[in-house]
Amino acid sequence: MAIVSIIYFSGAGHTEKLAEAVKKGAASISGISTNLISIKGDDILNGRYINEAVISQLDESDAIIFGAPTYMSGPAAQFKAFADATVGSWFNQKWKDKLAAGFTISGAPSGDKQGTLQFFQSFAMSHSMLWVSLGELPGQPDGVNRLGSWGGAMALASQEPTDVAPNAEDKLTGEKLGARVAGLALKMK
Amino acid sequence: MAIVSIIYFSGAGHTEKLAEAVKKGAASISGISTNLISIKGDDILNGRYINEAVISQLDESDAIIFGAPTYMSGPAAQFKAFADATVGSWFNQKWKDKLAAGFTISGAPSGDKQGTLQFFQSFAMSHSMLWVSLGELPGQPDGVNRLGSWGGAMALASQEPTDVAPNAEDKLTGEKLGARVAGLALKMK
Amino acid sequence: MAIVSIIYFSGAGHTEKLAEAVKKGAASISGISTNLISIKGDDILNGRYINEAVISQLDESDAIIFGAPTYMSGPAAQFKAFADATVGSWFNQKWKDKLAAGFTISGAPSGDKQGTLQFFQSFAMSHSMLWVSLGELPGQPDGVNRLGSWGGAMALASQEPTDVAPNAEDKLTGEKLGARVAGLALKMK
Amino acid sequence: MAIVSIIYFSGAGHTEKLAEAVKKGAASISGISTNLISIKGDDILNGRYINEAVISQLDESDAIIFGAPTYMSGPAAQFKAFADATVGSWFNQKWKDKLAAGFTISGAPSGDKQGTLQFFQSFAMSHSMLWVSLGELPGQPDGVNRLGSWGGAMALASQEPTDVAPNAEDKLTGEKLGARVAGLALKMK
Repeated sequence: MAIVSIIYFSGAGHTEKLAEAVKKGAASISGISTNLISIKGDDILNGRYINEAVISQLDESDAIIFGAPTYMSGPAAQFKAFADATVGSWFNQKWKDKLAAGFTISGAPSGDKQGTLQFFQSFAMSHSMLWVSLGELPGQPDGVNRLGSWGGAMALASQEPTDVAPNAEDKLTGEKLGARVAGLALKMK
Repeated sequence: MAIVSIIYFSGAGHTEKLAEAVKKGAASISGISTNLISIKGDDILNGRYINEAVISQLDESDAIIFGAPTYMSGPAAQFKAFADATVGSWFNQKWKDKLAAGFTISGAPSGDKQGTLQFFQSFAMSHSMLWVSLGELPGQPDGVNRLGSWGGAMALASQEPTDVAPNAEDKLTGEKLGARVAGLALKMK
Repeated sequence: MAIVSIIYFSGAGHTEKLAEAVKKGAASISGISTNLISIKGDDILNGRYINEAVISQLDESDAIIFGAPTYMSGPAAQFKAFADATVGSWFNQKWKDKLAAGFTISGAPSGDKQGTLQFFQSFAMSHSMLWVSLGELPGQPDGVNRLGSWGGAMALASQEPTDVAPNAEDKLTGEKLGARVAGLALKMK
Repeated sequence: MAIVSIIYFSGAGHTEKLAEAVKKGAASISGISTNLISIKGDDILNGRYINEAVISQLDESDAIIFGAPTYMSGPAAQFKAFADATVGSWFNQKWKDKLAAGFTISGAPSGDKQGTLQFFQSFAMSHSMLWVSLGELPGQPDGVNRLGSWGGAMALASQEPTDVAPNAEDKLTGEKLGARVAGLALKMK
């Protein structure tokens, strides 16, 4: 049995759809329990994230998957507020050797999504985690990883309704990432 | 006459000291007017920065210098909240062709400070700005750029009192950056 | 009068087409002289780039635009060999205050092109240059910046013939970058 | 039994010393066999790395640790030439699920070493590997990770003789990284 937590911020609902796809992928692996955790603006007081219960839940997980839209060249500030609030877990290295992975969305094919994934990676490194790559070549008939990302899952969404974007291909990409992390989490136990 | 604005977040006061040094450097150039603007937690509501007056002040500047401590592998969340709130200026490309530069502080010689400066650079690029390098070789007798940074000014501070850290060398590095940006801002007018 | 040099490596000819477009854009600005310089494998001996004449030409330029395909998550090794060979110009800071910009190509919409542009930026920073953003919003009717890049020009090409890829939109993106750098180079003189 | 390969380029011998320390750490774990592989300039023809035997050796490894000095803001070109030559292994995803880690050296405390480690990470991601963090907090009495790096091992060396730099603390940091990767490689089998 291994626990995979997905923690994400979603502004307009698109990232939530992708987070649900990642969870679906993780939950499809037998022996996996999942937590799908949304970062709420209400939990941010003067720029500081204060929901300690969420952080405890992550402390108990075997793998943590980070998700946020790319806003202004990096992860949404709400995600960063959460990240800054993990300093206690960092100081005690509670996440050491856990698996980490990530996903992000923006309105352009490239945008600065690689920069957001790089931040997720650096953040995970500071927690002494292991970073799991997406593991899917682009150019497949099913459209998985159509944007061509290696460090995590990328999806495209702008002002469209959330039942249209992210599209089926991007959600399938998220599912594959969730399943991959789940499988590796079991192997690492 | 050119206007150089320094906008920064400081958690424990160290980044404020460095910001003051940057301002001192910029103000030392004749023909320059400076704004030293602190990002306040009170201006962040549910994770969103709401002080439109600050953003208007930046819209009117010729150069903008960004500053934040490196927390958990990136700029402090409070800075990111400010960055996300510039989306209106971005959409209208109000900062196009302005100069940009940056500085950051963390508790270790390297830390993830380069990652924070890279974020500042990507953020400035999305605003169609020009990024100004630090312009100082390390290894000089006066200790300027002792940490060896190219993309902006780096300083070292952890739990020390703010009259001890950042030290004189790091503050001089900040001054040099401020003066450099100011000189180039005049040239670009 | 200002000199804009474009220095690039092209493996299969696609990056050369984009480099020509960048040059066309720069040359379209009156008062600009351009150098279009290809990095040749023959000039790399045991992994070291040895063409000093090229580096002297860059020393005499007002702006330098870097171009390379993204191979295995970064600029092609041939470009990096050239970059490493600029250590003399770096030591003497001969490129200080020159303008810099960049472009890259890969086979997927995102790929790791942002990483290549970030390298170009860091490299330019070490030379104490000023980095010029692309300056074009994506989503325009003419298709300029269709991939959504801020730090430089991105184009798409894989195994297609070089008269097909990069396509007209990507070449127009390159032209715009060349013209932008040229205009700013005149302003900086 | 698991195989850990260390592949590195060393220009002046400092990176070789660090590579040997990493190997020592890996070899100290029982059940581990190591390969210490130097990238030679002689194997680079017109900028292309041609030693297929090395790449086959890596194809057979369980973990691969990358090492290069940071030259002009990125990994030495010779390392990049090697990286570009792994395109066949990449196309066939022969390194999928292998562990990866990295180390780098430059002459200044920060320098652009984080950028080099980020490149290693992106490169490993494209090979669908798992990236192993350094896993050591800075500020320890033994001086391990004295520069404050999370994504890999960083060391300091400039023009000093190779019996002086990297120093004992930096070599111990390398050893710790080697041992960490080796332990995780056994766990993953």
